[in-house]
Amino acid sequence: MAAKMTTDEWRAFVSAGTRTGKVGVTTGDGAPHVTPIWFLLDGDDLVFTTDKSGAKGVALRRDPRVSLCVDDDEPPYSFVALWGTASLSSDPGELRRWATALGGRYMGAERAEEFGTRNGVAGELLVRVRITKVVALRDIAD
Amino acid sequence: MAAKMTTDEWRAFVSAGTRTGKVGVTTGDGAPHVTPIWFLLDGDDLVFTTDKSGAKGVALRRDPRVSLCVDDDEPPYSFVALWGTASLSSDPGELRRWATALGGRYMGAERAEEFGTRNGVAGELLVRVRITKVVALRDIAD
Repeated sequence: MAAKMTTDEWRAFVSAGTRTGKVGVTTGDGAPHVTPIWFLLDGDDLVFTTDKSGAKGVALRRDPRVSLCVDDDEPPYSFVALWGTASLSSDPGELRRWATALGGRYMGAERAEEFGTRNGVAGELLVRVRITKVVALRDIAD
Repeated sequence: MAAKMTTDEWRAFVSAGTRTGKVGVTTGDGAPHVTPIWFLLDGDDLVFTTDKSGAKGVALRRDPRVSLCVDDDEPPYSFVALWGTASLSSDPGELRRWATALGGRYMGAERAEEFGTRNGVAGELLVRVRITKVVALRDIAD
């Protein structure tokens, strides 16, 4: 039987290794839009960066509601789905700091600075999602 | 540099092993909703099942637009994002047939019938997505 994860469990699950988030937003015509992101938890928030002019950035500037899914795609399958509201920042220092931290998680500490330089640039947005709802289930197919 | 996948490449990528789809729909209040699914390609369509009364089923009966993401969450990172329009069926034979095929892909051939029986039941919907747009990139972080 599927089992609910505790708060500590889902936080560890989404933070394990290089698990990516699949983030969903609603575009201007009401259509769904799902793409993968690098993210980190920061207290009760979830943080990622995105291109201000990309589909995700444009959608979030219009409607800040976010849905995000992280899963384990091997039997018996587990997933965490989060919902929240995004606030956006173009602050260069914040962007650079988080792009570096994200680079560290996803490319390794020795390449953190390289990816901070690559992604923490003008034209990017820092997206901070205040998490309002979590569904976290492990061993769905047991 | 990231490279575009060909049609054969993205079809093979999303069909490899037990990779799940993260499917996004728009709910009645316009919010995004992303959860993982088991799916198969069927010609130009993508097929999955869902609970008719669940959030995804309710949303799809109202607005058939679907966004779906499949990714490789290890460096250098690759993903396929698909968009399409869903048609829904409650036909018991179709449901049972596809639930069995999905069980075979995700739980192994020896458990296909078990999962066909478990998931191909009344109250489930067969969702057939006609794919209208694909973005498929490999080696994003190279």
